[in-house]
Amino acid sequence: MKVLIVYAHPEPQSFGGALLSTAVDVLSDAGHTVVVSDLYAKKFSAMAGPDDFTDRLDADHLNMGAEQEHAATEKSFSSEIQGEIERLFAADLLLMQFPLWWYSVPAIMKGWIDRVFAYGVTYDFGRTWDRGIMQGKRAMLSFTTGAPESTFAPDGRNGDLERVLWPLHAGVFAVCGFNVLQPFVGWAPAWVGDEGRQAIIAQYTERLRTLESDAPLFFHPHADYDEQSRLRPETEPGTPGQHRGTRRHLR
Amino acid sequence: MKVLIVYAHPEPQSFGGALLSTAVDVLSDAGHTVVVSDLYAKKFSAMAGPDDFTDRLDADHLNMGAEQEHAATEKSFSSEIQGEIERLFAADLLLMQFPLWWYSVPAIMKGWIDRVFAYGVTYDFGRTWDRGIMQGKRAMLSFTTGAPESTFAPDGRNGDLERVLWPLHAGVFAVCGFNVLQPFVGWAPAWVGDEGRQAIIAQYTERLRTLESDAPLFFHPHADYDEQSRLRPETEPGTPGQHRGTRRHLR
Repeated sequence: MKVLIVYAHPEPQSFGGALLSTAVDVLSDAGHTVVVSDLYAKKFSAMAGPDDFTDRLDADHLNMGAEQEHAATEKSFSSEIQGEIERLFAADLLLMQFPLWWYSVPAIMKGWIDRVFAYGVTYDFGRTWDRGIMQGKRAMLSFTTGAPESTFAPDGRNGDLERVLWPLHAGVFAVCGFNVLQPFVGWAPAWVGDEGRQAIIAQYTERLRTLESDAPLFFHPHADYDEQSRLRPETEPGTPGQHRGTRRHLR
Repeated sequence: MKVLIVYAHPEPQSFGGALLSTAVDVLSDAGHTVVVSDLYAKKFSAMAGPDDFTDRLDADHLNMGAEQEHAATEKSFSSEIQGEIERLFAADLLLMQFPLWWYSVPAIMKGWIDRVFAYGVTYDFGRTWDRGIMQGKRAMLSFTTGAPESTFAPDGRNGDLERVLWPLHAGVFAVCGFNVLQPFVGWAPAWVGDEGRQAIIAQYTERLRTLESDAPLFFHPHADYDEQSRLRPETEPGTPGQHRGTRRHLR
């Protein structure tokens, strides 16, 4: 298969860099074609805005969605974005590798999402979830943490990891139609010593070798929802983001 | 009180711009001091990295946490970051206003978090949650959505909004010790017409006038956790991120 690794780490000589090398080597050795978008090396701009477009529908008032749709039709994205779009559409698997910062991706990677996952490119009004444009492709997060695994247990201090990842798994990947694979997590590499880090590399190697047989995570298809976009009464919520219990925070 | 509004929108003439003006006017009229960090106007760099520091502990190998701690001690952050840190520490309330993109903040705002919420500045190893550095300050999200409210119901297509916001509420604000206020949500302004947008402005105005009496959201204090950072058996999980049910996604 063809793999696009989108990678964000400010230090090439970091453990993140070692994980990237591992992925490139293991996937290439297995016969896959690997392309890497190294966002820090490219100094990829994170600022979605007027520079995304070489031609504007309305030069006086920037409506991002409308301009993205226009650029998707006219292929008038900036070359930086157009290049990433082509890499993304050529890939069977999108693998995003990063250090988890503030329960999410580094800003430079969020910028890649904001700019490349444009309206009319990876989604549009009618084409989302199981009708999504990216159906047939797979996506996976691979990240390292500062804190150990127990802090991301369901009753851990940081909250259940699957809830922490909901905005990325559901809100970025699944909504566009990707099949989302289990994430790979390198737990707290700064705290486990050289031997622990070698063990993480070994775990990652093993995981990468069995990627093709991975079952994707479950998300509800459109058919499960009513016209208000709420799960039908007979459908039990089956994801980490959805439930029918009481809210804890919001009125 | 003193309010820092961190604002991200690529188009000043947008409805987001109107909400910003509303906040500045209403809070100023109520006698508060308002400072705005308009990230797009500043072209604030989102890329946490070597440019954050004017002096390096190790010029050959970038360890962000170590360099942030060094810069916090030596006050050797870049002027762009140092200026934001001073604004943040002068404020009683941090109000972050943005359009919700991919269930999160725009990348430029994530970059503000990645760079300004530095180790040794807004948190460190011992000072988090109810022992956090930012105790006594309040923080609040104010955002607009593309989709209507029902899609963010507990059983809505996008998942329960309070779970979507967990990475920001818990993972950015509460972990640093902020008291987190209920968010203000401007629901789907693109779809509600001029009258609907005026109603959102009116709701926001009302909300801003009563901010000072707002009760903060609940997060567990350190005392509720065992040495593995998991809730003690006698403590019932009381936040949207934590639970003792079965996982849906992660093995």
